Amino acid sequence: MGLWLPDKPREECGVFGIYAPGEDVAQLSYYGLYALQHRGQESAGIAVANGKRVQLYKGMGLVSDVFPKEKLDQFSGSMAVGHVRYSTTGTSHQVNAQPLLFRCAEGMMALAHNGNLTNVTELRSYLMSKGAVFQSSTDSEVIANVIARDYRGDLKEALDKCMLDIKGAYSLIILTENKLIAIRDPNGFRPLCLGKFDHGYVAASESAALNAIGADFIRDVQPGEIIIIDENGLESHQSLQSTKQSHCIFEYIYFARPDSTIDGYNVNQVRREMGRVLAEEYQVEADIVIPVPDSGTSAARGYAEKSGITFEEGMIKNRYIGRTFIQPDQDLRDLSVRIKLNPVREVLAGKRVIMVDDSIVRGTTSNRLVAMLRSFGAKEVHLCLSSPPIIKSCHYGMDTSDSELIAARLSNDEICAQIGADGLHYLSLEGLLNIFGASRDMFCTACFDGNYPVAVANPQEAGKYSLE
Amino acid sequence: MGLWLPDKPREECGVFGIYAPGEDVAQLSYYGLYALQHRGQESAGIAVANGKRVQLYKGMGLVSDVFPKEKLDQFSGSMAVGHVRYSTTGTSHQVNAQPLLFRCAEGMMALAHNGNLTNVTELRSYLMSKGAVFQSSTDSEVIANVIARDYRGDLKEALDKCMLDIKGAYSLIILTENKLIAIRDPNGFRPLCLGKFDHGYVAASESAALNAIGADFIRDVQPGEIIIIDENGLESHQSLQSTKQSHCIFEYIYFARPDSTIDGYNVNQVRREMGRVLAEEYQVEADIVIPVPDSGTSAARGYAEKSGITFEEGMIKNRYIGRTFIQPDQDLRDLSVRIKLNPVREVLAGKRVIMVDDSIVRGTTSNRLVAMLRSFGAKEVHLCLSSPPIIKSCHYGMDTSDSELIAARLSNDEICAQIGADGLHYLSLEGLLNIFGASRDMFCTACFDGNYPVAVANPQEAGKYSLE
Amino acid sequence: MGLWLPDKPREECGVFGIYAPGEDVAQLSYYGLYALQHRGQESAGIAVANGKRVQLYKGMGLVSDVFPKEKLDQFSGSMAVGHVRYSTTGTSHQVNAQPLLFRCAEGMMALAHNGNLTNVTELRSYLMSKGAVFQSSTDSEVIANVIARDYRGDLKEALDKCMLDIKGAYSLIILTENKLIAIRDPNGFRPLCLGKFDHGYVAASESAALNAIGADFIRDVQPGEIIIIDENGLESHQSLQSTKQSHCIFEYIYFARPDSTIDGYNVNQVRREMGRVLAEEYQVEADIVIPVPDSGTSAARGYAEKSGITFEEGMIKNRYIGRTFIQPDQDLRDLSVRIKLNPVREVLAGKRVIMVDDSIVRGTTSNRLVAMLRSFGAKEVHLCLSSPPIIKSCHYGMDTSDSELIAARLSNDEICAQIGADGLHYLSLEGLLNIFGASRDMFCTACFDGNYPVAVANPQEAGKYSLE
Amino acid sequence: MGLWLPDKPREECGVFGIYAPGEDVAQLSYYGLYALQHRGQESAGIAVANGKRVQLYKGMGLVSDVFPKEKLDQFSGSMAVGHVRYSTTGTSHQVNAQPLLFRCAEGMMALAHNGNLTNVTELRSYLMSKGAVFQSSTDSEVIANVIARDYRGDLKEALDKCMLDIKGAYSLIILTENKLIAIRDPNGFRPLCLGKFDHGYVAASESAALNAIGADFIRDVQPGEIIIIDENGLESHQSLQSTKQSHCIFEYIYFARPDSTIDGYNVNQVRREMGRVLAEEYQVEADIVIPVPDSGTSAARGYAEKSGITFEEGMIKNRYIGRTFIQPDQDLRDLSVRIKLNPVREVLAGKRVIMVDDSIVRGTTSNRLVAMLRSFGAKEVHLCLSSPPIIKSCHYGMDTSDSELIAARLSNDEICAQIGADGLHYLSLEGLLNIFGASRDMFCTACFDGNYPVAVANPQEAGKYSLE
Repeated sequence: MGLWLPDKPREECGVFGIYAPGEDVAQLSYYGLYALQHRGQESAGIAVANGKRVQLYKGMGLVSDVFPKEKLDQFSGSMAVGHVRYSTTGTSHQVNAQPLLFRCAEGMMALAHNGNLTNVTELRSYLMSKGAVFQSSTDSEVIANVIARDYRGDLKEALDKCMLDIKGAYSLIILTENKLIAIRDPNGFRPLCLGKFDHGYVAASESAALNAIGADFIRDVQPGEIIIIDENGLESHQSLQSTKQSHCIFEYIYFARPDSTIDGYNVNQVRREMGRVLAEEYQVEADIVIPVPDSGTSAARGYAEKSGITFEEGMIKNRYIGRTFIQPDQDLRDLSVRIKLNPVREVLAGKRVIMVDDSIVRGTTSNRLVAMLRSFGAKEVHLCLSSPPIIKSCHYGMDTSDSELIAARLSNDEICAQIGADGLHYLSLEGLLNIFGASRDMFCTACFDGNYPVAVANPQEAGKYSLE
Repeated sequence: MGLWLPDKPREECGVFGIYAPGEDVAQLSYYGLYALQHRGQESAGIAVANGKRVQLYKGMGLVSDVFPKEKLDQFSGSMAVGHVRYSTTGTSHQVNAQPLLFRCAEGMMALAHNGNLTNVTELRSYLMSKGAVFQSSTDSEVIANVIARDYRGDLKEALDKCMLDIKGAYSLIILTENKLIAIRDPNGFRPLCLGKFDHGYVAASESAALNAIGADFIRDVQPGEIIIIDENGLESHQSLQSTKQSHCIFEYIYFARPDSTIDGYNVNQVRREMGRVLAEEYQVEADIVIPVPDSGTSAARGYAEKSGITFEEGMIKNRYIGRTFIQPDQDLRDLSVRIKLNPVREVLAGKRVIMVDDSIVRGTTSNRLVAMLRSFGAKEVHLCLSSPPIIKSCHYGMDTSDSELIAARLSNDEICAQIGADGLHYLSLEGLLNIFGASRDMFCTACFDGNYPVAVANPQEAGKYSLE
Repeated sequence: MGLWLPDKPREECGVFGIYAPGEDVAQLSYYGLYALQHRGQESAGIAVANGKRVQLYKGMGLVSDVFPKEKLDQFSGSMAVGHVRYSTTGTSHQVNAQPLLFRCAEGMMALAHNGNLTNVTELRSYLMSKGAVFQSSTDSEVIANVIARDYRGDLKEALDKCMLDIKGAYSLIILTENKLIAIRDPNGFRPLCLGKFDHGYVAASESAALNAIGADFIRDVQPGEIIIIDENGLESHQSLQSTKQSHCIFEYIYFARPDSTIDGYNVNQVRREMGRVLAEEYQVEADIVIPVPDSGTSAARGYAEKSGITFEEGMIKNRYIGRTFIQPDQDLRDLSVRIKLNPVREVLAGKRVIMVDDSIVRGTTSNRLVAMLRSFGAKEVHLCLSSPPIIKSCHYGMDTSDSELIAARLSNDEICAQIGADGLHYLSLEGLLNIFGASRDMFCTACFDGNYPVAVANPQEAGKYSLE
Repeated sequence: MGLWLPDKPREECGVFGIYAPGEDVAQLSYYGLYALQHRGQESAGIAVANGKRVQLYKGMGLVSDVFPKEKLDQFSGSMAVGHVRYSTTGTSHQVNAQPLLFRCAEGMMALAHNGNLTNVTELRSYLMSKGAVFQSSTDSEVIANVIARDYRGDLKEALDKCMLDIKGAYSLIILTENKLIAIRDPNGFRPLCLGKFDHGYVAASESAALNAIGADFIRDVQPGEIIIIDENGLESHQSLQSTKQSHCIFEYIYFARPDSTIDGYNVNQVRREMGRVLAEEYQVEADIVIPVPDSGTSAARGYAEKSGITFEEGMIKNRYIGRTFIQPDQDLRDLSVRIKLNPVREVLAGKRVIMVDDSIVRGTTSNRLVAMLRSFGAKEVHLCLSSPPIIKSCHYGMDTSDSELIAARLSNDEICAQIGADGLHYLSLEGLLNIFGASRDMFCTACFDGNYPVAVANPQEAGKYSLE
């Protein structure tokens, strides 16, 4: 048994918050999380506050599996926070599911976090030396302890202090008994946006989640900003000045939904443009352009438009992929790709094919894809990737690790040989950044060039205080 | 709670059979069924034969939910039959799940059926008058009893006699203790094809299921043909002469996977051609052509190609749809469509839009779709359907019923007004049939014109002997 | 994982039927089955009829696990039949769960059976030669087919004919769309009694099930009798004359609840009397009499009363036994008994102990028990059994098999040596029968003496037509 | 649906710890908890340490339901701690299940607690003012935080300090990465004993759990004692002097297993003696003595022995009670008792009955019992209880509450009238204490006389900081 693990980096979380007295905030959170399901499939949770207390329900699995209707109906309150989580193998435990519900001197709180702190080991160690106990491996629990420790009767003040203590990537939504709070780290690594609703406010990792519940996008939460929403309305202040914005560029390449607009750019349009730039950078005689569905589709269309080469659907994706299913035994291993993607002989036979994908990480499935296209009659297969080579590990919430990165080990030609393609082209970093014009410096590209916007202390100690 | 029920007719089953001594036939059947999941999501089952006995495992739900790895591993044998089933509300019971395992004078058998018999009421009544008992509402159990009753020591003879008795649509795969048998009714209503494998044979509802397990397509099973595969190889005979072929044309419009090739036509290519014909039949000034994903995508692309109007993805479908999830409560009903399909304002704003879908049945969601596009800025919305109006009930295995068919009650203009579109165009039956050229008479078009190739006796008695 | 399997023969079923318009017959059946749970723990089912149709719900496991409240509430009707089933390993399948729901020329019927037919192989073979199909391994399905085949428009007549065809042990409760029918084989092997309720009638395997729902015991169903209850009231006739009554004597020894009264004898009183007879037959110097709880308790008390030796609870049974739980691994095997039965050192230390149990089958746990008592200080351990040695297999619904019967292989002394006791005494068959006085000839004692009241044809072919 | 809730006070927990390198400590803990199942049925958990880390698995439900075999097998280590929990309605949440796994400056620890702290509200409030966060409502989490806060590099010292801080009832078993620790509060409210094993040590709430795994009882853990077991063996010290022992006397009356020996007294023998004292205190003409099974059985036997009146089993308890099952609907409410306890007419008819039970709390079922006995023919029913009237709430781990205690509201005569008995007698407190002779002052009798050995501060604030 196993989840289908495509050869892609993985997003670690999606967060959703709503302040809407009089509305069914639990059910709206459910739909909000449903729209963010692609950001995490391992656990889901919703906490609801009613002015006096905060109630939580969470569990392992997809949003549609975790919440029975009865549970949603039992919630009552005027604001809520939700979370979907993906986690690396081995830490997929109930105890790490979010939101984290806790009680501190301020009262009850629920906290949902997307991102990775870079100084979590030091923080945890310091807090334990002061008598703190930890019950999970999550950054969220560390943040909760920092807030509780910094608290001197004024939550706003405690949050400001907390932002001085924690480093790295964090898009936070916090629910108190009577407030909804949205916070984004000063670099703005992970996305977080704000929406308006007939009867209240919504905050979410992506604008698609606002649309899903009929809310209107207002703006992105600013790097370093703290937004507090309560019965007095919305109040915002810039807690930390943002000296350098460094939005995760991989949100545009792969993570985010195409219908989301993040920090000013519509994801689908960026992807199509990536395809166009690819077509400029890599010109080759070919008969058709095909995507690796679904993530390569927009870029393939852009490539086709720019190059004038016909766009075709050369492979059909099984609609039911996305669920845990039984992996082929060793002697049926060759089926592992074709169960998910079925080539169409009528489209491929005798054709020179440009196959567009968004990225490769370990390179473990590309060779099977290429071989499969050839076995269905493709004469040539050129692989175009709408991202630069991934050569460095991310410390801000995207899941990869150095050792597995094929582009960190092999040259372009070696990779091309290994996957058996007739040509291989990665989108250039320059070409990628140019798409964003004047904003080209506002992105984190560490996974492509190693320029880490926030230093990471002792990455090898990261798991030291794990509870697993 | 509820399954997402799109406004489409529903296929009732998918069947899969494999004869491959030395191979893991249970696991291969699992992947075969996985590739046919779109043909039925309510139950799944696999039976395996080892020369001496037949073992069965089946359950309610998706293929990936029904079979634990341990169960697949427990099977051992050299041939197998599998089934996925969709059923109309109220008969979604374990007892109706297939394959049907039974013992008769010939020994143990497992039977999987796709299609609807038209004389099942008479058959059941006759058999009961002779002392038969029925434990389910399925046609399969009736067929099993007919075979058992016709049996006089020679299975082949019994099958021939059975085909004289049963009327209507049936693509059957039968497993005995040592044989795999594939049968298709003389009209060839439902698809059934034959494939070759290194070490054996495969039969399946669609060719995509052959591809999924690495088998090669040989040919379609002929209307009226019985194929028997055993240790002596494959033997075929034409049991009944096919006087009139009447393949279900809705397989091309909606049911089948785009990567399947059925009775000589690749589904994706037919759908694209439907779009092209639509573009000839309905010319309107517009800025963009968008599909209702995923079923309208191929036709929309054909429309765009033919008309020269730009193809865009104006709505993004939630990738996790397809699973049971909580339906919005009454006061959130407006969300029911946008949870599944999120319009992209950047694409739609200020545009005259041609929206291409495959079909509508009750017309219950089209008005929400049109209104939603307008609310995201679309100036005009023209709805093009790649099928003629559905005005008659199907009696051969597609699930609709007269009373609910919007096109049976309202004129084109009335429907257009009801759904609030600026224009509405159905593909003409003539245009549809022309796509198939000289083969245009080989299809069943009863749901469009009421010309039923096989008479139906007393349709109102159909439920008379139900066990539910 | 595994159910706790004590070294006892096993009952195969319990049946319950109720006719009570205006009452919640489903819920009453639930409590009736709950009271019969000891007769079968592998599956449970209830079917309800409302004059027009019969609805069924069944599943694997205990009554309290199988039925959710919602399911019981969904039932509506005026009569019901229920069943609990135990089955031998390997046939524990959903398909064999009862009641069996089927449709025949008479209409819908549900059938619940306790007992074993002795000519089921011949019947199944004959029926298949006439075109019948079988979907399970149960006798119930054979009986249903016999009834359906014998049916010529008059159900009563068909039942009479059926009773001529089927041989062996059967206590049957049958539900049609508007009738409740109770039938007992002419030997009266398995118990079946009739009760009266404010608003109707009840039939059940044991009188304790009548008490559980507040019904009053009327009488036992007579061997060979058919009782039909419908809107015209209760009608009975003697379908077959009973030439020889042969009630299962093991019901009194072990199977039945102590609070049940069967064929005129209260079970608890019989058990106490067994203990008294044991005390007469086996006199030994001892300090205390202790039971193996719970099944040996009544006899131990009788022994103590008659002998004047003090009764003590020398072992305490874990109250939570009775559920599936993890069996000790090989190296913890010694714990297997003491997890269930914990000796009390304060009671045992230094004592000469008479330990009373009802029966042993394979003798696999007695040696552990004896050793355990010694390790808690018992000076002597004498084992008294309130049944004669079991030396023959039962063909009428009690589950044992020759090869495993310790008393069929070893002499009394050998058994005593093997289990390490200081003495071993089985109740004599004569002593057992004398308890019943003038009725002493009305019991089946085949397992003790091999006198089978009904012949068994070809027992080795019994599994021939199994579906598993 | 609902658990069967007899009219008894409820124990809140059972704890179990084992130090046994080379043994399967997880499986042994499973059997240990299985033996303690009666102390808590709502959740169960086991944590295992291997010298480097501590792993935990816990869940809601019975021991046999919570742990799959695979989970037990995955554990590896040389020591373990386990817990079963009962909780009051409304706080039956996964988050409150124990043991509590946490990391502090000492490393990983797992903590299992039986008892109730009386100053938990003050402690939690103080700790939060210092920056602590709480994720559950359990005392365990408070104790963990106290230990972590008191820790200055020496665990033993921290435990000593902790014992100065926490007040009330606590039997604690704590697992660190390489130590097993057992602690009992200075009053010795809840039981805790120590056992020896071939290869190590065991600590448990009751001696029956030692027997279950083949360990030998050594002694009770002393009030105020801390025992630390590690690779250097067992080390003990008296952390707090015990000025007043106050063992819970209800353990003998109802909570504990009859086969356990607690603080020097075998439970079964104490219960039998209670019956004897009852027979001295309450002499009445009667024909039979019957217990309310199972908890009244020992006392009834004692009563019968002393009085010379015949002991009978007048009611038979359904063996399958103890599991959640569907409660009767309103109109079947009268069945609620007889489903569990079935009277035997043969025993009761025409008899004057003394019915012996251990205690009544709210008096909600006694009237049904009395009425039921009469309806089965009992001429007189005298109720004897082997405990004094419960008139005060317990603050040390037994679940009752003032408002519901029938004896706090009504006089003996009023209660007798309300339950419809011909006589009612409670065991006198004096009579109860005399059983223990010289040790009569070493028990807590607060629920009978309001003499609370440890003061309770502001009981009404108890729920103030709850997380639910």
